[in-house]
Amino acid sequence: MSKIYKPRSISGFPEWLPEVRALELSWIDHIRKVFESYGFVNIETPAVEEIDVLLSKGETDKEIYVLNRLQADEKDKSDARLALHFDLTVPFARYTTQHFNELTFPFKRYQIQKVWRGERPQEGRFREFYQCDIDIINPESLPVHFDAEIPAVIDEILQGFGIPAYTIYVNNRKILLGYMNGLGLTDNAAMALRILDKRDKIGPEGVKKQLIEDLKLSEEIAEKALALATIKGNDVSVIEKARALGIKNDLFEEGLQELEYVLKSLGGFVGNRLMADLSIVRGFDYYTGTVYETKLNDYPEFGTVSGGGRYEDLAGQYIAKKLPGVGITIGLTRLLDKMVREGIIKPKRPSRTDVLITVFEDAQRAEALSIAAQMRGRGLNVEVFHSTQKFQKQVGYADKKEIPFVWFLPVDGKGHEVKNMKTGEQIAADPATWQPTVEERT
Amino acid sequence: MSKIYKPRSISGFPEWLPEVRALELSWIDHIRKVFESYGFVNIETPAVEEIDVLLSKGETDKEIYVLNRLQADEKDKSDARLALHFDLTVPFARYTTQHFNELTFPFKRYQIQKVWRGERPQEGRFREFYQCDIDIINPESLPVHFDAEIPAVIDEILQGFGIPAYTIYVNNRKILLGYMNGLGLTDNAAMALRILDKRDKIGPEGVKKQLIEDLKLSEEIAEKALALATIKGNDVSVIEKARALGIKNDLFEEGLQELEYVLKSLGGFVGNRLMADLSIVRGFDYYTGTVYETKLNDYPEFGTVSGGGRYEDLAGQYIAKKLPGVGITIGLTRLLDKMVREGIIKPKRPSRTDVLITVFEDAQRAEALSIAAQMRGRGLNVEVFHSTQKFQKQVGYADKKEIPFVWFLPVDGKGHEVKNMKTGEQIAADPATWQPTVEERT
Repeated sequence: MSKIYKPRSISGFPEWLPEVRALELSWIDHIRKVFESYGFVNIETPAVEEIDVLLSKGETDKEIYVLNRLQADEKDKSDARLALHFDLTVPFARYTTQHFNELTFPFKRYQIQKVWRGERPQEGRFREFYQCDIDIINPESLPVHFDAEIPAVIDEILQGFGIPAYTIYVNNRKILLGYMNGLGLTDNAAMALRILDKRDKIGPEGVKKQLIEDLKLSEEIAEKALALATIKGNDVSVIEKARALGIKNDLFEEGLQELEYVLKSLGGFVGNRLMADLSIVRGFDYYTGTVYETKLNDYPEFGTVSGGGRYEDLAGQYIAKKLPGVGITIGLTRLLDKMVREGIIKPKRPSRTDVLITVFEDAQRAEALSIAAQMRGRGLNVEVFHSTQKFQKQVGYADKKEIPFVWFLPVDGKGHEVKNMKTGEQIAADPATWQPTVEERT
Repeated sequence: MSKIYKPRSISGFPEWLPEVRALELSWIDHIRKVFESYGFVNIETPAVEEIDVLLSKGETDKEIYVLNRLQADEKDKSDARLALHFDLTVPFARYTTQHFNELTFPFKRYQIQKVWRGERPQEGRFREFYQCDIDIINPESLPVHFDAEIPAVIDEILQGFGIPAYTIYVNNRKILLGYMNGLGLTDNAAMALRILDKRDKIGPEGVKKQLIEDLKLSEEIAEKALALATIKGNDVSVIEKARALGIKNDLFEEGLQELEYVLKSLGGFVGNRLMADLSIVRGFDYYTGTVYETKLNDYPEFGTVSGGGRYEDLAGQYIAKKLPGVGITIGLTRLLDKMVREGIIKPKRPSRTDVLITVFEDAQRAEALSIAAQMRGRGLNVEVFHSTQKFQKQVGYADKKEIPFVWFLPVDGKGHEVKNMKTGEQIAADPATWQPTVEERT
């Protein structure tokens, strides 16, 4: 073919080299393992939903990709209204209502899939990325025990990644809302929380100013509202400090008790990586209780690694049943991209091959294939070199692919030998029993 | 919210219940394990490609889904020409050319991703489905050893699924083309193969009729063309039978030698599940050597489970380099759907939870959580029941979720006990050391 079309990368759609993809896959495997160790059940939903499903929760600020067939069959309207999902929460809500009678409740589900958003791409913001979600939902009511389980799951996952120090911030919207109510704010309590949420951006003084100007609060009330947001700590002393502010309100008290339960439950597991921070709001209005937000301690500008919370009702727009739940999501792609670009986490070797069997004469190939099959039978990953090229070529292939061992078949009276590519050591070995250690295979 | 939007299933986009998804995931894990055991390297490409990339190979009969943003920013044309990929071969070709200098050759890649085709849905034909592909490519030339490796990989995968008897058919297009050339067909040889390919549909008599009518062949030549297509067998005797037809042609002879090599290499591994069948053509024109086609012996109407072959040039439309290769794909979704619908393969249990720890008093919860953490530490998947509901409720949850063991904390002077849900047996057990067998955990 004479005409060559030179493809370019598509902005916002990340594509990794094999060694970065190997790292990503190892992260996904680890996430799955932790999710499953807590009894979460996997589901996968189609990449597409009906547009009406995506929009049924009302206005969405996510830019949606709509599908059209290139050669549309005018008579077939069956796929006229499809679009790519922009998160996994809406598909999960739709899935739950559609298969309601076939699911076991409390339904602990996990979902690891790509989502698509037609946003303008910029550093750390992608148009296609992995989300890793867990949620627990139950008809009518859901015990607070699950609120305490989620940070334990997230902590175990992040510990396994080997990323730099992070903090899992936890708060409870009932504390915030009840406190505002106790201060006399009712209709404008939600607005006050939205202003409080800008604390990182505009500072405490900025928040105070907006509370006074936008909500017509007195300076005293504005300062009291801010006082709550300054409370943070690793243990239940935060509960005492909040109570010491002297607000009497049932919702406030309920929130404090829930937060106290979460902190007490988790203290032993997560230690000082868990921080109660009464300034945490979380953007979405639909959170109603516990909220979570995880940040890297030394990369504040990176934003949230993982966020979530408790909600009153998952799927009221699709089903006449109340489904309270609690859930969290990990933004895998952003985190991986950041860690690799910063050189903090090294990519893995591109293949999982443990050993390359070299072949220097065609007559050896049958033996090489037979040994390879034998080794695979005991769980090893084995390649047989594809030609009888010279030593340098074959070892060079293992080197480039970072294969940790190279095997030599018997020659000139010598028996089988295996070379450790890292140490350079070459020793006699029995193909029927040779086994590298787990560490050597990583 | 008062307005309820009742979602429906979207035709052609399969969605499984958790227990079928668990089966699918176990298949994908098995496929990965086998691919990796042969040294294949994973890549993942975006769901989308530029439309120009998808169409650059010329006409495509796959209906393509084009993306449009719902709230398109008129000034931003960066994503104006994107569409969902309809297979993994085109993205692989594009990937290889784009990252050419960073890859190690021979490049053995595997890719397990969903693809989308806007075809009219019908039984066994989906609009969204998983493809599982391997290919090996190398600049300029690629040894025939790899042609022999691929059926070994496919056989190991299919053996692990536990599906009913199947046959991996293998042929070589050089045999077919060389034979036709030897019969005097040159310009119309490709057309003759296309007619031969309809053998299953129109029968040998139909093929003969078309060869005579459409290509103006004599009855004698048409019969000779058909004679080749009747040769099949499990061993190299097929090579002798083909030579006995008396055609002298270099390409024919080259094909026979390649097929003989594949059969000899694989004989020991795949046994009578491998069948040389000189009638196999494989639709795509771009195959130039070995071709593969796997079918279920008792479900001929189901068609191809897995197909592939050798090609001269992967990516001539994107790069001025010759990249010969050999590859195969497994149509995972179709096969899984068929096996589950026919009741041949049973879904798995929805979760991987090994044991449910019951809690009948709030005071026990801390101990339950601590034991759960201890058990997870040694690799078990553990749930703690979320409330102190009565015995029936808690055991009922384990039963519905098919959790194989239920744990009872010490009570009334009795120690820890664990109940095997399958046998009903309940015995004393030590939470620090208790370990179910691999079989009990499956």
